[in-house]
Amino acid sequence: MNPRTLKLTISYEGTRLVGWQRQAGGESVQGLLERALAPLAGSPVTVHGAGRTDAGVHALGQVASVHVTCAHSLEVLHRALNASLPLDVRVLDVREVDSRFHARFSARAKTYRYLVYNGSLVSPFAHRYVWQIVEPLDLDAMQDAAQMLVGTHEFSAFRSAGGAPTTSVRTIMRSGVSTHAGFGLVLPTEVRCGVAVDEYDGSRLLAYEVTGSGFLRYMVRAIAGTLVDIGRGRHPSAWMASLLDGGRRSDAGATAPAQGLFLVRVDYD
Amino acid sequence: MNPRTLKLTISYEGTRLVGWQRQAGGESVQGLLERALAPLAGSPVTVHGAGRTDAGVHALGQVASVHVTCAHSLEVLHRALNASLPLDVRVLDVREVDSRFHARFSARAKTYRYLVYNGSLVSPFAHRYVWQIVEPLDLDAMQDAAQMLVGTHEFSAFRSAGGAPTTSVRTIMRSGVSTHAGFGLVLPTEVRCGVAVDEYDGSRLLAYEVTGSGFLRYMVRAIAGTLVDIGRGRHPSAWMASLLDGGRRSDAGATAPAQGLFLVRVDYD
Repeated sequence: MNPRTLKLTISYEGTRLVGWQRQAGGESVQGLLERALAPLAGSPVTVHGAGRTDAGVHALGQVASVHVTCAHSLEVLHRALNASLPLDVRVLDVREVDSRFHARFSARAKTYRYLVYNGSLVSPFAHRYVWQIVEPLDLDAMQDAAQMLVGTHEFSAFRSAGGAPTTSVRTIMRSGVSTHAGFGLVLPTEVRCGVAVDEYDGSRLLAYEVTGSGFLRYMVRAIAGTLVDIGRGRHPSAWMASLLDGGRRSDAGATAPAQGLFLVRVDYD
Repeated sequence: MNPRTLKLTISYEGTRLVGWQRQAGGESVQGLLERALAPLAGSPVTVHGAGRTDAGVHALGQVASVHVTCAHSLEVLHRALNASLPLDVRVLDVREVDSRFHARFSARAKTYRYLVYNGSLVSPFAHRYVWQIVEPLDLDAMQDAAQMLVGTHEFSAFRSAGGAPTTSVRTIMRSGVSTHAGFGLVLPTEVRCGVAVDEYDGSRLLAYEVTGSGFLRYMVRAIAGTLVDIGRGRHPSAWMASLLDGGRRSDAGATAPAQGLFLVRVDYD
């Protein structure tokens, strides 16, 4: 049998997961995929992910690559994978790609989204997916600051202390804050017909979305924490620019909680 | 201090709850509310709910009534309740009402919604809120059958075997099936931009919505199970009419799973 390279697109609800990466003492997306694939592939496999999301982080379109030698059709593989995976991890798509494809090294860009709920009452259907900030946030100031990140910068102020000693230079193609009108809070209609219209108003849900060539560990969450500090008025928008190209991690805002972060998509050539 | 009667509107994500009613060995909405209210009221209280939802059933607008003698403002009560409740149970509204108000006995109508996802791939963000049916459902047949329930009927075919020996007569004001376009599956936008557009198409999400003067235990779920049998073509629409006014529980469809059911709202004069 010829070896084949598969590209998997995966969505997961990260609440109970220890993150992408296989590790002792918890269920990881990588571990779950490898366990589901092994009986189909006939031997142990290693699955490579585009982004190593941390514990509690969600994914709408994570991408993984894996080499297999089995002869199953893509449709059979797709169905069998979802049949053995838990319901909070779903394979959305399986396709065969060039053998040189690697989910991480071939990626051209990744898009992350961070959701902030700016209100006093978070729906019980949404609390796993947002960071709640009760005090009013200045969206314009946040948007000004977010746009300062576009370009190639040194992001040392937004990298975790324990990271490997490689470069902190990354290129950001898009970076912006908006109200997230499309967010459904699971069931928007009846909430709008109900008692708490204002509390569930879409304008209270802010999305920070960023597309870049690559990201340092905790980078998006550190940016989100910094943006929220600016939104609260603790610092002006220009603070963001001052943190680029040489800032220390302790200069920037705190790391925002994991549950608001989504890996939205990964782009390839 | 004068005794006061409070009307609470509550939303909950029922996945890990044992249901509305207080019981040993699990967290109930009633028990959580009573535990949160007691220190505010200064003494134990009994909270009455409009609908005694079962384990795993969700609520967007459950209503409860309670007598208290404390002097706290409604705003303080509201905030203190949510501060002590878990995040999957939220009080949306607190108001003072006439002392004769009783959440259950004063209710004029209740509206329930049952969600069916008619496709092969359920989002990891939606699986707690839908009953998945993979084979195509005939929406028109289901809608024909749903409309037959409107009026005053004897619903013995849709009541649980263990129920108390009271009347099975109930009045249904509205009963219909529709595609649930407003459903967000938490994050519709990126899914639409993503890889699995068809799988997440709103038209695959069916909502059965029913408003009635009152409901027997498991009644909505038994109706949902019966509607799905009709949608699958196992029975014609007319089967529904034949089950009314004297049918036995064993004649109707199976009880649909709890996680698709939502208590949407309760209406009062």
